[in-house]
Amino acid sequence: MSERPSNDHVSNGRLDSATTRAEVLIEALPYIRRFFGTTVVVKFGGNAMGDDALASRFAEDIVLLQAVGIRPVVVHGGGPQIGDLMARLGKEPEFRDGLRVTDAETLDIARMVLVGKVNRDIVSSINIHGPLAVGVSGEDAGLITANERHPDLGFVGDVAAVNPAIIERLLAENLIPVVSTIGADLAGQSYNINADTVAGAIAEALGAEKLVYLTDIEGLRRDVNDPASLIRQTTADELAALMADGTLTGGMIPKIASCVQAVRGGVGQAHILDGRVPHVLLLEIFTDEGIGTMVSGTSQA
Amino acid sequence: MSERPSNDHVSNGRLDSATTRAEVLIEALPYIRRFFGTTVVVKFGGNAMGDDALASRFAEDIVLLQAVGIRPVVVHGGGPQIGDLMARLGKEPEFRDGLRVTDAETLDIARMVLVGKVNRDIVSSINIHGPLAVGVSGEDAGLITANERHPDLGFVGDVAAVNPAIIERLLAENLIPVVSTIGADLAGQSYNINADTVAGAIAEALGAEKLVYLTDIEGLRRDVNDPASLIRQTTADELAALMADGTLTGGMIPKIASCVQAVRGGVGQAHILDGRVPHVLLLEIFTDEGIGTMVSGTSQA
Amino acid sequence: MSERPSNDHVSNGRLDSATTRAEVLIEALPYIRRFFGTTVVVKFGGNAMGDDALASRFAEDIVLLQAVGIRPVVVHGGGPQIGDLMARLGKEPEFRDGLRVTDAETLDIARMVLVGKVNRDIVSSINIHGPLAVGVSGEDAGLITANERHPDLGFVGDVAAVNPAIIERLLAENLIPVVSTIGADLAGQSYNINADTVAGAIAEALGAEKLVYLTDIEGLRRDVNDPASLIRQTTADELAALMADGTLTGGMIPKIASCVQAVRGGVGQAHILDGRVPHVLLLEIFTDEGIGTMVSGTSQA
Amino acid sequence: MSERPSNDHVSNGRLDSATTRAEVLIEALPYIRRFFGTTVVVKFGGNAMGDDALASRFAEDIVLLQAVGIRPVVVHGGGPQIGDLMARLGKEPEFRDGLRVTDAETLDIARMVLVGKVNRDIVSSINIHGPLAVGVSGEDAGLITANERHPDLGFVGDVAAVNPAIIERLLAENLIPVVSTIGADLAGQSYNINADTVAGAIAEALGAEKLVYLTDIEGLRRDVNDPASLIRQTTADELAALMADGTLTGGMIPKIASCVQAVRGGVGQAHILDGRVPHVLLLEIFTDEGIGTMVSGTSQA
Amino acid sequence: MSERPSNDHVSNGRLDSATTRAEVLIEALPYIRRFFGTTVVVKFGGNAMGDDALASRFAEDIVLLQAVGIRPVVVHGGGPQIGDLMARLGKEPEFRDGLRVTDAETLDIARMVLVGKVNRDIVSSINIHGPLAVGVSGEDAGLITANERHPDLGFVGDVAAVNPAIIERLLAENLIPVVSTIGADLAGQSYNINADTVAGAIAEALGAEKLVYLTDIEGLRRDVNDPASLIRQTTADELAALMADGTLTGGMIPKIASCVQAVRGGVGQAHILDGRVPHVLLLEIFTDEGIGTMVSGTSQA
Amino acid sequence: MSERPSNDHVSNGRLDSATTRAEVLIEALPYIRRFFGTTVVVKFGGNAMGDDALASRFAEDIVLLQAVGIRPVVVHGGGPQIGDLMARLGKEPEFRDGLRVTDAETLDIARMVLVGKVNRDIVSSINIHGPLAVGVSGEDAGLITANERHPDLGFVGDVAAVNPAIIERLLAENLIPVVSTIGADLAGQSYNINADTVAGAIAEALGAEKLVYLTDIEGLRRDVNDPASLIRQTTADELAALMADGTLTGGMIPKIASCVQAVRGGVGQAHILDGRVPHVLLLEIFTDEGIGTMVSGTSQA
Repeated sequence: MSERPSNDHVSNGRLDSATTRAEVLIEALPYIRRFFGTTVVVKFGGNAMGDDALASRFAEDIVLLQAVGIRPVVVHGGGPQIGDLMARLGKEPEFRDGLRVTDAETLDIARMVLVGKVNRDIVSSINIHGPLAVGVSGEDAGLITANERHPDLGFVGDVAAVNPAIIERLLAENLIPVVSTIGADLAGQSYNINADTVAGAIAEALGAEKLVYLTDIEGLRRDVNDPASLIRQTTADELAALMADGTLTGGMIPKIASCVQAVRGGVGQAHILDGRVPHVLLLEIFTDEGIGTMVSGTSQA
Repeated sequence: MSERPSNDHVSNGRLDSATTRAEVLIEALPYIRRFFGTTVVVKFGGNAMGDDALASRFAEDIVLLQAVGIRPVVVHGGGPQIGDLMARLGKEPEFRDGLRVTDAETLDIARMVLVGKVNRDIVSSINIHGPLAVGVSGEDAGLITANERHPDLGFVGDVAAVNPAIIERLLAENLIPVVSTIGADLAGQSYNINADTVAGAIAEALGAEKLVYLTDIEGLRRDVNDPASLIRQTTADELAALMADGTLTGGMIPKIASCVQAVRGGVGQAHILDGRVPHVLLLEIFTDEGIGTMVSGTSQA
Repeated sequence: MSERPSNDHVSNGRLDSATTRAEVLIEALPYIRRFFGTTVVVKFGGNAMGDDALASRFAEDIVLLQAVGIRPVVVHGGGPQIGDLMARLGKEPEFRDGLRVTDAETLDIARMVLVGKVNRDIVSSINIHGPLAVGVSGEDAGLITANERHPDLGFVGDVAAVNPAIIERLLAENLIPVVSTIGADLAGQSYNINADTVAGAIAEALGAEKLVYLTDIEGLRRDVNDPASLIRQTTADELAALMADGTLTGGMIPKIASCVQAVRGGVGQAHILDGRVPHVLLLEIFTDEGIGTMVSGTSQA
Repeated sequence: MSERPSNDHVSNGRLDSATTRAEVLIEALPYIRRFFGTTVVVKFGGNAMGDDALASRFAEDIVLLQAVGIRPVVVHGGGPQIGDLMARLGKEPEFRDGLRVTDAETLDIARMVLVGKVNRDIVSSINIHGPLAVGVSGEDAGLITANERHPDLGFVGDVAAVNPAIIERLLAENLIPVVSTIGADLAGQSYNINADTVAGAIAEALGAEKLVYLTDIEGLRRDVNDPASLIRQTTADELAALMADGTLTGGMIPKIASCVQAVRGGVGQAHILDGRVPHVLLLEIFTDEGIGTMVSGTSQA
Repeated sequence: MSERPSNDHVSNGRLDSATTRAEVLIEALPYIRRFFGTTVVVKFGGNAMGDDALASRFAEDIVLLQAVGIRPVVVHGGGPQIGDLMARLGKEPEFRDGLRVTDAETLDIARMVLVGKVNRDIVSSINIHGPLAVGVSGEDAGLITANERHPDLGFVGDVAAVNPAIIERLLAENLIPVVSTIGADLAGQSYNINADTVAGAIAEALGAEKLVYLTDIEGLRRDVNDPASLIRQTTADELAALMADGTLTGGMIPKIASCVQAVRGGVGQAHILDGRVPHVLLLEIFTDEGIGTMVSGTSQA
Repeated sequence: MSERPSNDHVSNGRLDSATTRAEVLIEALPYIRRFFGTTVVVKFGGNAMGDDALASRFAEDIVLLQAVGIRPVVVHGGGPQIGDLMARLGKEPEFRDGLRVTDAETLDIARMVLVGKVNRDIVSSINIHGPLAVGVSGEDAGLITANERHPDLGFVGDVAAVNPAIIERLLAENLIPVVSTIGADLAGQSYNINADTVAGAIAEALGAEKLVYLTDIEGLRRDVNDPASLIRQTTADELAALMADGTLTGGMIPKIASCVQAVRGGVGQAHILDGRVPHVLLLEIFTDEGIGTMVSGTSQA
């Protein structure tokens, strides 16, 4: 506190409000202690990325995490933004078996948008709070080694290996890495890689405590049409089973599969949260109530 | 969040509450960033020390400060508790010119009570939260070199020098020093020293950001009988003037004089707070509203 | 040496060639010793950037510098590439008093091209040799604080301050920073900044030993039309005088002014070299013969 | 040597004395080299603690150990001193099955005496030689986790766990820890614990080279009434056998059992020495002759 | 480049030469990268040691290795120089079964020559390039523990153990150790040891990447009289077989046996090179062509 | 103590002896504390060097100093030993104006004797106690830069500069440097330098606490023929005056001048001791009585 109104008394009302504030801080205490020094990988995406107010709150949350000693790593995608620039350039998207084909020009466009626009916007919104964020591409210092998924798909890559040294160096300097998911193969050829998959692979390589997906949905549902079927807490094994028996399908599969693999690979918990809820990251990490779907290694219910 | 009620939906009420919580955390953010890594010396005393609920909340506050990267140092007195044991032992207090005379037996009793009881109780209440606090006496590792105040007063000492190395070592290990204010001269003779004075001298020696006195009053008043005359913000020079012209007198003088000297010696701000307000430390440090009296080097109003 | 032709004798011819090789290495020895551990900032630009063979040799040179203990930093521009994408997007360039106006959309395009394409291409060409290069934008970790040059020009910025901490951290990890010259002001607004100017400012902030401009010309000439007037060695004062009296004018001015300021600010020497000569960087640094124009603080002729 | 008598010659007598001195130092050399950097845990107790001359010599010995690179840790008890204060306060000791019952008030008294008086006296006597000693209670920084021995005995504890981190930190700073044997359980409740047992547990946790008990007896005897039956050297197995067959009984049992356990747990040797012999610690460690009883893992006779 | 001829143009001839130079540097690049930070033990001996020009080039080569990040260790012998001083002192060499007997006086002479003359000359020739080399004898800091080969041979020793700590400390400070091959037994008696054997033992103890013998021959030959039988590349197993079947015999045996043992003990490659070829060390390490005989663990042909 | 006679009682006589031993150790305590971590440069020379018993005691003393945390550096000469080898080689010493001329052959002989024999003997006698000593020549790592004293004297050098880095590195590793006083000029030419002078220059460069000359005399005398005129304690100024007025002359002058310069250059005290007294180093440093002549910056009598 550095400036203050002069001389009015502490009213009861103010004290009550003050007590509430103190209680919130005290409620956060065990979480601050528990997560101090741990790494949290957050996949930022979906509509939240396009909403200035939500993006600004997201930046605040990331900065708060860092301020209390957590080491956040942001991974982002940007499919809609890539589509926009392709459209403006008159580039027709081409699909094969339902998957987008990435020719050299498409890759160039994707790279420009991801590294040169989306990444920059996130870095800028964080750095309003101080010189904290550093943009990183998977091509930098060998972070992501990619290999070709399928010759027919062009420069669509899979994660062959993650060398997290550059991320760890930045974290060690109390910086916040913001990662674009372009990788390169050993010959220097770049590939565009699914950001959900990269987020999971980085979390695993870092031995992260948490992997968090900010999405446009409230969480996973057993029955996609029944809000009451929201899965609040589950295990990697249960999720794997729900994928295997076809209960879970569709666009969430890369996130779900990454949650399963990350948790099995040593990540503490994975979370699928509703990025449309303001400050949902803080609420998940620092308060007693859970939000969205939490995946852990073994049942804790 | 590690346990959670299964499957009830996020009600509007809960979201509202959640938003409030997030806002409190976000409000705390600039203070967390500003005070990260700084040292805060807190003099704990008065009635708060005897009230179990307040003592327990005080411990929570100290632990929260440490959890978010502040380095708290606790300094305590214990006059009433010393008086109690003297009474039980049938030892008559002796006064000369209004000051208590400390003979060898009284010193022994004071040392037992301060180091062996009051200090222990504070350490224990903090360590319920983890192995964090370490009791330290001014005699340890040359922390406080004392000299005799006046031959007639016996073993009542003044601070001759502070060697904060042991405090700094403990802080560097993320431990919380709890200091009893017994000092020793170079010949190994111990002395009892005023805790308010020691708190200021330690804050100055550590180059602390803040020196906080938890007291039984709301703050300093220009007119001791007029609650409306509460001084919310002042400077070392102004306080020195108010002492010089007799406006401020009485039992608060050691605290006030220590505030003036500490701020002049490089401490960022000194605070006189009402220790009876629950979590007053947190409210002062982490919220926009100020409480009690703040003393800084130069006017910031 | 790991594979070798079996059993043919060392011919005289081979020995001669071998001796020559050894002599080249021995000739390089004093330069290797002299520049070990020093920082060399290289501005890469012009036509060399678009020529795959030259770009590939440039990458080899940078990697060799790093292999022998020099700490290279690459700064790049990309005006022609920005123009290309603007043209493809049907965006008309707008000029005011001969200077290009950068509106929000132009800035977005410039940023995408510089950070998302040109920077990436340089990083990729270096990283074929190992996980060495890391792309950095001036917006990362507060590297370049910009301010607006003139309201009429839109988001064209000047360098207000350079905080080289992120560069120094990467250099300390034996990584090669490749810098795009986008800066941000304190409110988070980005600006496009002249790359020649940024290169000089970074060299000065790093206390670099050398600042090297790779250009499309052989070096500075006293008379632009007379190849015989090539300036091989000069001082900051002499160059400043040649600018003041109008001998030197035109597009080289930002480079020349940056050379003068950098050398006056503590950089050992500045060089304007012909980037079209293969491996010109190596020849300048590791051989006895000089190439292009060298600017030092005081005359050494 | 900084002051000297002027100009009298080196007499033969003085040279002889000088040679003797040099020989003593040279005799100590292999022990200094052997024990450099090792940890020695010394249990200080019995009558030596109450004898000012012996206490002062004990402090000198501890300081000499530290000066030549040994890392001493002092553990103390204080039964008689606790009894004194209880008597003065009119508190009747209560026994059950021959063991003293420790109610809350007795615990308070014990803690005040141990931490606030006995510990302080030892710290003071060492710190006459410099700012070396630091008082530590088992409650500090989780040093000793206690659990209740038996409900009928009140707050009498056993050692559940030792976390020697705080001791190791102080040793690493060349400080001398002086440990009071109050422990706390995880709920923050304090217990009084047998000091002999704590000394052994700390020696084991630190991987000490030596555990030394300073006692009021010459050493262990096979026949308590026969001075000629003094055991000069033995093994943990032999001692365990002598306890099992009833040869050794009585008040020395906690010390003997701790010697056996410590040596089996990795401590190099345990010693039971006569604390009434001046400088017995130095003689044991730095001279060729042994004193008292030495317990090692395997027979060395 | 610090001085330069003024204003003459870059002739074609100069460019050609320049390009050649750049290509040599670029050719060296992969070797510089591959061997950066590795240790190379070089046995210097034979006639090269007595030829001032070759000795001077040898010093240049060692300094270049160090300048590009390789850690060279020089081991030397000096049989002819020992013989010279013995002759001058009128000391008759004595042989038993063809081996020279080393009595106390001979040892004294050998030690003076090796440590006090040959070692000094090598150190001096390196230190013309800067304060780089440090002479070390096997007696220093326990580097080589020797034991007696045979009572009849006097003070001729074998390597009992190598403690490379002093070498590693010097290497860590970027210094160049130059080792004389005198060792000592545990009682302090010195012995003269074969330098070829010591070089191999030190290379093995350091886990060196390369062990290089500079000799007076072109390399090993299958048929000593047939230059066409030069072995350019071989394995430890093959060499061991050639020694076992008597193909290889004579004075090269200590070198060959050391190559076999070192490579089997973890050294990357061992080389037998012709020390009469100028800069043969550089050519072997930094160019694509191999020279002399290379021994590796497994066949790479 | 690891072995002990079984079961005989502690006799009074033994206790008395034991007490004496303890007292000697306790008497040494303040000196151990005072000199812990300080550097002591000892010039070893004169007849003591040729007496095996004294040399062995000297080694013990040096090892004891190191064992209690002092950092000893030994500097040695070897004039008589050089003369011996010259005589054996039939080399006539040549003098000019009373100073020995050092031609190339004489230098070679001096270097062999000093570095290859005298230095080795001292290193060996120390290393009987462990791998502690390392021989160093002034030529190693640029320790002593020499320049020619006078063309007529040949390779007799003066100290131009001392770079103590190699000594400090060895001390930091708890090794004992033993220094031969050969230096080299920048062109690599070696020179023989007076060892007394080198000892003082190294003490000054290291900021040593003490510089000790072990000699063949009892100390300095005001009247060389009157034992009663022994100077026990003096200052640099007084010594300089005694040299200036001709009271002190002769062969001690290089030592005396070095004492004066070293003390004026920051060395704590310089001592001229009688190296024939057994363990005189220990007696001087660790006992209350002074021996020989002590030179300090200012009068302490």
